[in-house]
Amino acid sequence: MKTRTDAEHAAKMKKIQAAQNKKVAAKTVEKGLVIVHTGPGKGKTSAALGMAVRAIGHDMKVGVVQFVKGAMATGEKAVFDRFPDLIEFKPMGEGFTWDTQDRTRDIAVARTAWEEVKRMIADPSYAMVIADELNIVLRYDYLPVGEVLEAIGGKPHMTHVIITGRNAPQELIDAADLVTEMAQVKHPFREQNVKAQRGIEF
Amino acid sequence: MKTRTDAEHAAKMKKIQAAQNKKVAAKTVEKGLVIVHTGPGKGKTSAALGMAVRAIGHDMKVGVVQFVKGAMATGEKAVFDRFPDLIEFKPMGEGFTWDTQDRTRDIAVARTAWEEVKRMIADPSYAMVIADELNIVLRYDYLPVGEVLEAIGGKPHMTHVIITGRNAPQELIDAADLVTEMAQVKHPFREQNVKAQRGIEF
Repeated sequence: MKTRTDAEHAAKMKKIQAAQNKKVAAKTVEKGLVIVHTGPGKGKTSAALGMAVRAIGHDMKVGVVQFVKGAMATGEKAVFDRFPDLIEFKPMGEGFTWDTQDRTRDIAVARTAWEEVKRMIADPSYAMVIADELNIVLRYDYLPVGEVLEAIGGKPHMTHVIITGRNAPQELIDAADLVTEMAQVKHPFREQNVKAQRGIEF
Repeated sequence: MKTRTDAEHAAKMKKIQAAQNKKVAAKTVEKGLVIVHTGPGKGKTSAALGMAVRAIGHDMKVGVVQFVKGAMATGEKAVFDRFPDLIEFKPMGEGFTWDTQDRTRDIAVARTAWEEVKRMIADPSYAMVIADELNIVLRYDYLPVGEVLEAIGGKPHMTHVIITGRNAPQELIDAADLVTEMAQVKHPFREQNVKAQRGIEF
């Protein structure tokens, strides 16, 4: 690229721009999306929180239910609680299932959280509903995936639903509009014994 | 998993918990991380914004410089501008390089934005510095990657630096602590002619 002249650069960019404009012009559909963030890498929850920030910045109402995080004070909760008219942020988990060791209770906790997600999805005043770590609950069969498919299948047309967590079931991937797989290229937890830190993990 | 009894489940979870506790106990290192979000999938910028939210929720000071986004009003800017003591949010781009078509100007714009990132990284009062879409600038050789490596190599010990954008150069991946590759499994822009929407892309 370094050897290209400025004139060549401008000509090439003009071509890219024309192609880009054509692509953008073809995109006319507006609809609420079903978005899944999955994969073993980091950033699944963070990217959902980033979209929540964008939405509330446009005065769109957002509901967030967290299926794993519970009582722990997180940075995201401290910020979102400053916007009570725009975002309902509900950590409804009790930690990881290996900590509770009680399947019956885990199922009950998942059920309560899921009923809250269903209520938000069914209410068209929510422009975006985030079910954080729902995939983990599905993975353990604490909730039938069919119920999730039914809820997103019947969602209001413009509502965005974002579901995070590793090991998203194939049926959910099939039903989604946009699926990103976060892949781990390098992770300091494993390689450098770095612990979970404020601002990064919570 | 369905056929396992509750007792079997509890026993298995106890094992996982023990392994997990052992792993967590080994992690004692606290340090500022160099984090890269790359790959063709979505969520690279959103995940960085999510971490900014976490950080300001812990009263950590954050600096954000955007290398592509410019004058356009975004949801993220509207929210972050509500926290002027905690976050400096600076969209310093002028759009995509195929829109400006002027390499000399693009290089000057990238340089100005980069000087701002360097200033923030050198100032230990910033706990987190985000260089959004810096990889695109590096990809076009608008900035030498060596300068970026030098700045992150000399950063204060506890400062987190987050760099986003597809096509991260290998030298940057080698220098990073944590690298996530966002892979595109399904993308409605391409497949369904869905346009960029508020709350999702901006």
